[in-house]
Amino acid sequence: MDHPHSQAPGAPVRSGIPEHGRIPKYYAVKARVALLVDTMDEGESLPTERDLAARYEVARETVRQALRDLLLEGRLRRQGRGTVVAGPKLEQPLSLASYTEGVRRQGRTPGRRLISLERFPCPPALSEETGIERGEPVWHLERLLLADDERVGLESTYVAVARVPGLESEFEPDSSFYSYLRERRGITFGEADERIETVLAAPREALLIGTSPALPMLLIHRFSRDSEGLPLERVRTLFRGDRFSFTTRLSSYA
Amino acid sequence: MDHPHSQAPGAPVRSGIPEHGRIPKYYAVKARVALLVDTMDEGESLPTERDLAARYEVARETVRQALRDLLLEGRLRRQGRGTVVAGPKLEQPLSLASYTEGVRRQGRTPGRRLISLERFPCPPALSEETGIERGEPVWHLERLLLADDERVGLESTYVAVARVPGLESEFEPDSSFYSYLRERRGITFGEADERIETVLAAPREALLIGTSPALPMLLIHRFSRDSEGLPLERVRTLFRGDRFSFTTRLSSYA
Repeated sequence: MDHPHSQAPGAPVRSGIPEHGRIPKYYAVKARVALLVDTMDEGESLPTERDLAARYEVARETVRQALRDLLLEGRLRRQGRGTVVAGPKLEQPLSLASYTEGVRRQGRTPGRRLISLERFPCPPALSEETGIERGEPVWHLERLLLADDERVGLESTYVAVARVPGLESEFEPDSSFYSYLRERRGITFGEADERIETVLAAPREALLIGTSPALPMLLIHRFSRDSEGLPLERVRTLFRGDRFSFTTRLSSYA
Repeated sequence: MDHPHSQAPGAPVRSGIPEHGRIPKYYAVKARVALLVDTMDEGESLPTERDLAARYEVARETVRQALRDLLLEGRLRRQGRGTVVAGPKLEQPLSLASYTEGVRRQGRTPGRRLISLERFPCPPALSEETGIERGEPVWHLERLLLADDERVGLESTYVAVARVPGLESEFEPDSSFYSYLRERRGITFGEADERIETVLAAPREALLIGTSPALPMLLIHRFSRDSEGLPLERVRTLFRGDRFSFTTRLSSYA
């Protein structure tokens, strides 16, 4: 290990290695592979599991466990049958309501793919959260989020049919919902309350996004109002934890 | 399963169960235990693994896997040798720089416990991020974060010794660093850039916080300036993903 303080301040103290007691063997291998990855370029191929096992004199299963952690953290990614160095996580400004705009600022091409668009009577739980009357028709728009054609998230939008009666026919599901609201419906986004947490993907979500169910995800709950202060939508967006981080600026200490 | 839309809009669509293909058996058990937990009160004891295995007619290992997921998600928590229903996650407003104040607003008692306070020459990586000159003395203050005596996070603060030369003797490590800065040093928090991501705890961190290394954590990186615009601190704070969520309000769509 390097001197405990030579490392980046964003990294775990002492590279995460306890002062006392045993270090799990896979973690020691992980720390060494992480140092190796630091010296490599994005997209470069990692040596095979067999080679790494020989180099570090451990079992292949130990190497596999170390790589699994680095994959979950987004330091590595699978490419075909091999493993390559992943690029940095996308940084999405929390202040931006629009996924489309956030991804564009990173120089990536945003995209969305329709999973389903359904219409049903507002159930009690949704009514409680949004103030939409029980039984009033609502849309549920479910879309995969893409960045450069890579599946990176899954978004559920709930909105009263009364606000967007022609959603089914007027709206291009691969376009920005906020642009549609503004341009076709004259509805402007006002403000939103958001809550961020980390969760594991459910099997259905892991299948749709194409990730391991063990992958920690960032889940953002949003409840938004339009510029008149009227309830607009309830959104649940799941982002791959290995591909996204969110940035914000705090000012004025209360 | 309930009707797909009867559930809360914050829950995975279709309770996370795929439209096609097989549901992993442990996940079906997890979904049923989650429904059971919904009907129970905080702190109430879950039936034993043996009882649940008998009730759902599955192996105990299957029940164990289901409970492990619910523990990682913070729906359940261990208490002594049993498993009880956990309370909701603490909601920390992102707009608040102060952990102390955020936890107080939830009606909990915040606390901090000193892990280490060290002084060393500013290494290159820290210098690059903070603008502190290489080799200039810096403090590294590492503290456990507590809420009602429960260990919930781990915080590393890096600050130039020149800003707080008497830190070692003047500062009570279980108190708020921002209060100290303001009251003893006349330094007021100005603004901060933050980045939030999800990571797995390293073994040292898991040991200090007392969690499983498989537990997804929320990691917040902060770089702050004082009210004069001068660099103040670089902070790395790890929060238990099963105990914390962060809230924010967005306004004015750009």
